[in-house]
Formats: sequence, C-alpha cells, structure tokens
Amino acid sequence: MTKPTKATRHKKAMEKQKAKVDATIASATLERGVAVLLTGDGKGKTSSAFGMVMRALGYGQRVGVVQFIKGQQLSGEEHYLKDHCPDVEFYQMGTGFTWDTQDRGSDIEAAERTWAVAEAMLTNTNLDLVVLDELTYMLAFDYLDADRVISAITERPAEQSVVVTGRGGGSKLRAAMDTVSEVKDVAHAYREGIAARKGVDF
Amino acid sequence: MTKPTKATRHKKAMEKQKAKVDATIASATLERGVAVLLTGDGKGKTSSAFGMVMRALGYGQRVGVVQFIKGQQLSGEEHYLKDHCPDVEFYQMGTGFTWDTQDRGSDIEAAERTWAVAEAMLTNTNLDLVVLDELTYMLAFDYLDADRVISAITERPAEQSVVVTGRGGGSKLRAAMDTVSEVKDVAHAYREGIAARKGVDF
Repeated sequence: MTKPTKATRHKKAMEKQKAKVDATIASATLERGVAVLLTGDGKGKTSSAFGMVMRALGYGQRVGVVQFIKGQQLSGEEHYLKDHCPDVEFYQMGTGFTWDTQDRGSDIEAAERTWAVAEAMLTNTNLDLVVLDELTYMLAFDYLDADRVISAITERPAEQSVVVTGRGGGSKLRAAMDTVSEVKDVAHAYREGIAARKGVDF
Repeated sequence: MTKPTKATRHKKAMEKQKAKVDATIASATLERGVAVLLTGDGKGKTSSAFGMVMRALGYGQRVGVVQFIKGQQLSGEEHYLKDHCPDVEFYQMGTGFTWDTQDRGSDIEAAERTWAVAEAMLTNTNLDLVVLDELTYMLAFDYLDADRVISAITERPAEQSVVVTGRGGGSKLRAAMDTVSEVKDVAHAYREGIAARKGVDF
C-alpha cells in the first residue's frame, strides 16, 4: 500500500502548494516595468541578461543593450545580436577590462561616453527592455556618479524594464531595484584547470 | 596632488590584478565541454541558460534544449526559439508545474518520456550545448533516478557542454558538475506586489 499513499500524499502537498502559488500571483497585481539586478561573484549574470533579451524578442519587444567594459573581443552573444538582431540597439564601451587598460583617466572618459548612450535609452519610451551589462563596476571604481545612475534608472518610463549586471554595485543601487539576485560562485571549472569554453563562458 | 596619486594607485592595482588574471587563465588549459549547474531560489537560472544558448548560436554551434515541467504556456524564450531558431533541437515535457498536474503517476510517465529525449542528446556528438531546464525538480521529486541522470551527464561527449537549471538537485548532482552557481533571491518584485513581467519574468 506504499504506492497509493505516496501518490495521495503528493496530491495533497501539490494542492496546498497550488493554493500558495495562486495566492501569491493574485496579490501581485501592479503592472509596470521591473528593475532587475544580477550581482554576485558566480557565473551566469551576463548570460541571464541575454536570456531576458531573447525572452523579450520572443514577444516582439524592443530592446537596448549597453555593455560597459566589454567590446574588445566579441563574445558569442555579441556576435549573435550583431548578426541576427539588427533591431536591437547595441552599444559597447569597448575598452576591455580595467586591468587591461590600466588607465583611470581614459576609462572615465569611456565610461561617460557609454553612460550617455545608456541615459538616452532610459528615457526612450519605445524600448521595453534595457540591459546595462557590467554597469556596477563603473560605480565600484567611481567612474560614474551613483546618484545620477540611480536617478536615471528609477525615473525611466513606467513600462520599461531594466536589467543591470555585475559584482557589487552598492547598497543604494540595490535598494533602487525591484528584483535582486545574487549569483554565488559555489564551484567554477577554471579552478579544476578547465579553460573558459566558447559558447558557455564567452 | 590627489588626482595623479589616485591614477597611479589605480594603475598599480590594475597591474597586480592583470598578473593575477593572466596567471589564472594560463593555469586553466584543459579544453573540453563543461557541465554547469544553475541552482538556488533566485530569479535568473533559466534566463541564464538561454543566454548561453544565444552565446553558442553566436558561434554557429549546435544546440539542444529540453525543458522539464514547462510547455503548457509558451514563454518568450520558447517563442523565440520556435520562431527564429529552427535548427535548435527543442523538446518540452509540457505538463506544467507539479502543483498544476497534482498527479504523481502521469508526472513520472511524462518525466521518463522527456528524459529519453535528453539522454539521446547527451550521446549526440553533433551537439555542442545541451540545456536541461528545470531538471533538478525531477530528481527532487524522485521522478527520475539520480544515478542514471548523473551517469548520462558525466559520460556525454567530451566536447559537449551541458547546462542544468532548477532549485536543489542534490549533492551528488552538484559534485558531478564543473561549474555551480547558486542564484540567491535577495529581493523579488512580486513581494512588492508587482506582477510577473512579460519579456523579463516569462
């Protein structure tokens, strides 16, 4: 008699779970764009942002992407957007990592130039989703003024969603976002000596 | 004299950082497919897997996607793959959440059917990337045998990468993966009463 009992217990537990899920959905009724922060030291922040780009494009939404830091070498998702998604507004700072440039002055100029593009997107009512990839480092290095960045994010069009990625970012930025996920690095292939993999890591 | 000092300190710190990064890259030389687990209770696991799909497609790689649970209602990334990526092998269990079906017997049958598709992908040397979305729940509910699943993952073609998503999954699965990221739910819009957003949350 173990099997029917297990099935019955399962049904009961699932009925309870469904009631809980339904109640949560019923209480979340505010319809507006959301601000999402993907932070932490683990793998998956930028890829998650690009997964949301795919999600938005699946509904025919308009998308803008600004990548801070990156752009020296194109990665897979950048190739994809350039080759297959000409309608996505796409801008890259293009300087490479701060430890590659090693030049604070030129980094700040590049950050300001890139931020101007982001700021324009954050006032563009035609865009449903804006991705600001690796933006947090611009705040961590004090390349951009945090208050100015946070104001632009919170004052964006009500229907627009925004996704910010990168480690850290500070408590003020966190407080300004609706959804915050911290991606923890529990294990990483490179610590086992495995090289970064094309199509997965870049 | 504050400014030049800051710039100089920055340069020194970045030189040090670059040496560290270079050493890490130099020591990770093993070239093979990686197994990635995206777990935890936060937002961004499935979207991260689909970001890696975009990344792989950007390099013209071959991709297979199996979605456990999902498929009752198409989400944005599913629309996108079906409409724009006919070359991606795509299979959905299609039952909806366990709290919707409330039927352990039919869930297990559907899980077995879906696993057969996944298992075939995990022996297909033509696929560069295989995504097994929400697979962990099949292990958590004991719908699939964990040892069988883990064997198929570890014995896949050496050049193939695999991404598994979902909460939990167990310590055995974790131990079998190269990269493990735990996505922590720090804040979520629905707790502020904001409805799930098209193009971001689904």
